[in-house]
Amino acid sequence: MNKTTVAALALFVAGTALAQQGPKPEDLIAFRQAGYKFMAWNTGRIKANLEGSYNKEEVIKAANVIAAVAGSGMGALFAPGTEKAVGNMHTHAKPALFTDKEGVGKVAMAFNKEAGELAKVAATGDAAAVKVQFGKLVEACKACHKDYRVEEKHEH
Amino acid sequence: MNKTTVAALALFVAGTALAQQGPKPEDLIAFRQAGYKFMAWNTGRIKANLEGSYNKEEVIKAANVIAAVAGSGMGALFAPGTEKAVGNMHTHAKPALFTDKEGVGKVAMAFNKEAGELAKVAATGDAAAVKVQFGKLVEACKACHKDYRVEEKHEH
Repeated sequence: MNKTTVAALALFVAGTALAQQGPKPEDLIAFRQAGYKFMAWNTGRIKANLEGSYNKEEVIKAANVIAAVAGSGMGALFAPGTEKAVGNMHTHAKPALFTDKEGVGKVAMAFNKEAGELAKVAATGDAAAVKVQFGKLVEACKACHKDYRVEEKHEH
Repeated sequence: MNKTTVAALALFVAGTALAQQGPKPEDLIAFRQAGYKFMAWNTGRIKANLEGSYNKEEVIKAANVIAAVAGSGMGALFAPGTEKAVGNMHTHAKPALFTDKEGVGKVAMAFNKEAGELAKVAATGDAAAVKVQFGKLVEACKACHKDYRVEEKHEH
């Protein structure tokens, strides 16, 4: 190979590596926090509907978001390198979240299940049933937060 | 009414007003930015699948998230008071986003439509069809950004 070929090949390899590299750890943290925050808007909307006047369509939309985010495979956003603050991103994740695969799998599956169920119940428009299922979802959130999230009063 | 009744009534009215107040403007900005950021993770995943090896299940999950977020009624997150930086939140929204209701409605509906369509196409597992529909979704993103978003190189 002549010098030009070698240089072109090196550039190609570097380019390929870059393309396959995917998001940086700080981006992964930002993405997962965005997922939880957007879910928070939607759990808040469902709560407001249950406490105030009930709008079936709004609850359906909110429940669909939560189900889609819960089932999106967010586990990939807890990749190695995202255990601690990195770049300009902090994290609320406890170290156990990255080591206790069995326990995390359990709470994550429970959350996914309750979220999927809530979307189904929301579609019926039965506010009383939504209230019961929403309670189960909140319990699933808390079960994970208890063991794997550092609860703080401020938000990053 | 005696004094106690008046005081109780005043407390009740204040409490109701507080409950109905909902999220603060800075929270609304944070929620909408979270929605776009979480969609960005998912558009990135679809792009990576189209450029690399195609995983049908991952694309379905990602497309479902985008459809659910796009159809969530995010317009409510652009409420009065969120036109400019507030609290610790900046915004990329141009002033026109809050005044040009007809134009915004048009691009928002187009985006919602293409996102819903992408979820349907993703479910078939036809990568070539997903590529075409994903292209349409990206165009819908750009159509809105062009008129209503201040494009910057850094993220808030």
